[in-house]
Amino acid sequence: MAKRDKIIIFDTTLRDGEQSPGATMTADDKLRIALQLERLGVDVMEAGFAASSPGDFVAIEQIARVIRNSTVCSLARCNKNDIEKAGMAISAAPRRRIHTFIATSPVHMEKKLHMTKDQVLERAIEAVRLARQYTDDIEFSCEDGYRSEPEFLYRICEAVIREGATTINIPDTVGYGIPALYGEFIRDLREKIPNSDKAIWSVHCHNDLGMAVANSLAGVQVGGARQVECTINGLGERAGNCSLEEIVMAVKTRRDFFNIACDVDTRQIVPTSKLVSSITGFPVQPNKAIVGANAFAHASGIHQDGVLKARETYEIMTAEDVGWKANRIILGKLSGRTAFRQRVKELRIPVKNEEEINEAFVRFKNLADRKVEIFDEDIQALFDERYIERQDLVFVSLDQHSATGQKPHAKVVYLENGVERHGEADGNGPVDATFNAIEACAKSNADLLLFSVNALTHGTEAQGEVTVRLSVGGRIVNGNGADPDILAASAKAYLDALNKLHLVKDRTNPQLSDTVLV
Amino acid sequence: MAKRDKIIIFDTTLRDGEQSPGATMTADDKLRIALQLERLGVDVMEAGFAASSPGDFVAIEQIARVIRNSTVCSLARCNKNDIEKAGMAISAAPRRRIHTFIATSPVHMEKKLHMTKDQVLERAIEAVRLARQYTDDIEFSCEDGYRSEPEFLYRICEAVIREGATTINIPDTVGYGIPALYGEFIRDLREKIPNSDKAIWSVHCHNDLGMAVANSLAGVQVGGARQVECTINGLGERAGNCSLEEIVMAVKTRRDFFNIACDVDTRQIVPTSKLVSSITGFPVQPNKAIVGANAFAHASGIHQDGVLKARETYEIMTAEDVGWKANRIILGKLSGRTAFRQRVKELRIPVKNEEEINEAFVRFKNLADRKVEIFDEDIQALFDERYIERQDLVFVSLDQHSATGQKPHAKVVYLENGVERHGEADGNGPVDATFNAIEACAKSNADLLLFSVNALTHGTEAQGEVTVRLSVGGRIVNGNGADPDILAASAKAYLDALNKLHLVKDRTNPQLSDTVLV
Repeated sequence: MAKRDKIIIFDTTLRDGEQSPGATMTADDKLRIALQLERLGVDVMEAGFAASSPGDFVAIEQIARVIRNSTVCSLARCNKNDIEKAGMAISAAPRRRIHTFIATSPVHMEKKLHMTKDQVLERAIEAVRLARQYTDDIEFSCEDGYRSEPEFLYRICEAVIREGATTINIPDTVGYGIPALYGEFIRDLREKIPNSDKAIWSVHCHNDLGMAVANSLAGVQVGGARQVECTINGLGERAGNCSLEEIVMAVKTRRDFFNIACDVDTRQIVPTSKLVSSITGFPVQPNKAIVGANAFAHASGIHQDGVLKARETYEIMTAEDVGWKANRIILGKLSGRTAFRQRVKELRIPVKNEEEINEAFVRFKNLADRKVEIFDEDIQALFDERYIERQDLVFVSLDQHSATGQKPHAKVVYLENGVERHGEADGNGPVDATFNAIEACAKSNADLLLFSVNALTHGTEAQGEVTVRLSVGGRIVNGNGADPDILAASAKAYLDALNKLHLVKDRTNPQLSDTVLV
Repeated sequence: MAKRDKIIIFDTTLRDGEQSPGATMTADDKLRIALQLERLGVDVMEAGFAASSPGDFVAIEQIARVIRNSTVCSLARCNKNDIEKAGMAISAAPRRRIHTFIATSPVHMEKKLHMTKDQVLERAIEAVRLARQYTDDIEFSCEDGYRSEPEFLYRICEAVIREGATTINIPDTVGYGIPALYGEFIRDLREKIPNSDKAIWSVHCHNDLGMAVANSLAGVQVGGARQVECTINGLGERAGNCSLEEIVMAVKTRRDFFNIACDVDTRQIVPTSKLVSSITGFPVQPNKAIVGANAFAHASGIHQDGVLKARETYEIMTAEDVGWKANRIILGKLSGRTAFRQRVKELRIPVKNEEEINEAFVRFKNLADRKVEIFDEDIQALFDERYIERQDLVFVSLDQHSATGQKPHAKVVYLENGVERHGEADGNGPVDATFNAIEACAKSNADLLLFSVNALTHGTEAQGEVTVRLSVGGRIVNGNGADPDILAASAKAYLDALNKLHLVKDRTNPQLSDTVLV
């Protein structure tokens, strides 16, 4: 099955994307993204790396139990423990894949693995053999494949295909490729390996030189690959991975050239991008292709009559195609429960029971008292808060005063397991004072790595969403908080982050492992 | 001179970059960026579009007077007025270029220009002939060139080269190209046009499908182009232009393949990126290649021992190569005037006289009272404030109180032409209250399009930099303010934006013209 007229979209936002410094997610975060990825229509989602930590194992398990239409995949090194953990974590999924990998480049084999070629080959064969006990869908990756010796790749790929690997992935791990060369590299492998037509070939490109998308497409068009590994917003280690939204829209917009099908529902692209950005706290720059606020001028809220007139002259795709909606004003103070419930349904926000809707509706009415127009993003944010309110530390109130020439002062009240805590402190600014007030009680000694503010909606009445990134003892978490008051949002975000520090105590951050850089 | 072993870097941050919705700059902003582009070593800088507005004419003139090492260029449509304005604006520059363009694609000629091919050809020839009265360095662009009929491009390019055009640019105006096709397209033109070797060929790619860099490189490598048009941070209309930092680092990192020289001083890349981001208010996403905070893990402030050990195994370029510095702690409360002056000099901050240094030193001591470690960015920000303090509206003080359950309340005092103004208002949040308090006096009726916060430095003591984007009657401006107090920074940013609304009153925003989409 060397050539197929369909491109398989393998999303690794939840694995390689999560390896971005600071993008660690909780199991609940991962589940929410997984559900959205299924809506988006990805063929395969790499849900995590089961052996990396008990927390990630649980996250994959949880995803495997609910995802029905996409293949659920776990990464695994070529060893017994990793393969077993991966196999167990994905077992509930109707379509499940184990993705096992080992480094094949001289520098990685020598400096990292301290293994000979024959040893690497042996380990790869054993891993694929073991993986077959759990599933027939097995992907094998040659880590740093593009810097590996072709002769060795011929040997190892032929061997693992013979052993039952159904997908062979040749990553450009360090983002060193150039389209013309990378495409030829893949083609050469497919031509030289006798049983290459028994597997789907896959590309996985990093964006260090800004060419991940073009390299992936060269892998498809020149090399004959039929799977592309990618992430939402191009998230990932260093400069990130190939962007899902760019590869999908390139294939669709230039179908005259690629002549290949792709099953992604492009209208889910922007909602997915926003969800991932909100959960990770990684902003999307305005000039990002497809999902940046300026990518389609009329989606950015800035009206340019002159340009709009000539729109059709310039447009190669429409904002609607990728899920931008020009006008999202939908609810206000007078909207009732029925309208609210209807919109929640239309937005396909996953809701477990009636009580959840009712709780969210109370928050909705509170918000509507302070904000004239409620946008879809506001509603999404109301549900995001579920995760905050269910946890140990719950925001109650903030009283803050700042005046030029005086030290800003803040008093924060929050609940810790239902017990009220009062903290009070000065700071360099009101945000600093707010955080100091929380720390006066919580005493986490966390380092603040990042503080960022995104307006969820336009205008002066926007709800602000604050992301706080904290680090304690090498563990890094993000917390989010949304509120029309930026200081209250900051306090909520800080408490959210503290909750996550607590929650993921048993979780090793995968990015701390030096072996996971496919 | 068909082939050269040097790539000409043509930066258009100040022209195509400025066309990004919301990226409008003042003449002073443009000058600061121009000085930094010269330090970066760009071969050509497109300083603006002289005929688009009196304001842009002045900006180009000002740049032409001070830039010595880069060629200064103005855009001009193919008409007498545009060419004359461009010629006059650049006249003081020792190296000066006129860049004239006209659309050559069927859809643009018909729907936008309402002209026949022969008319377009005639206009192009006349424009180049006229431009030669001002300079020998003339660039001609075929707008929407990549969607034009090759036969027509053969005719028009041959004609303008005969007339004296020294650079021929074939833009992919709508970002539709694919490397293999675009490279061949350029090669075909060079092969078919008899006098093609009399001009340097140039590429100008947009990033709508994420392939601007790869397309540009294919234009160079396959097509034989020797000029690349690009912008800092990939700024530009819609998804932006080819990123300067990516194209430069691709050529340098893969010199084994491209075998072509490039004169850019890569250590100035990150400082330039930060300056452009700060002036435009366009954030750079963490996973942006080269200049994103995560592009080099050890520059992001997050230490990952496991990865660091294997660093050399993964690194294809170093953070230092592109101007990231691991540790920029340099000054503190006890630093004296000499140390401060020395650092300002090292940072190459342009300072006009001794008084400016002294004023900045006073601000520095004030800051040092509130902040333990002063980073280079803090110092840069002290000088950015010059632009605020010299203008009509000057921030004096803010008194703000917010408490859960009450409407946040703010009192702002600012000077308007030296006269104190007091404003007071409630708001949905403290930022909203602050803006309302200013509006209570200023009554600009501006719409707030964007409110964004960037921490200039790490940690809880970070100075916050706030960007505010306002719109009044279709004019859009950005204002910046820096302060350890995020609310004070917000007030400063709002006043800065109001100042700019006032200042650029006579300036048509070039993005309002529907003819400037090269």
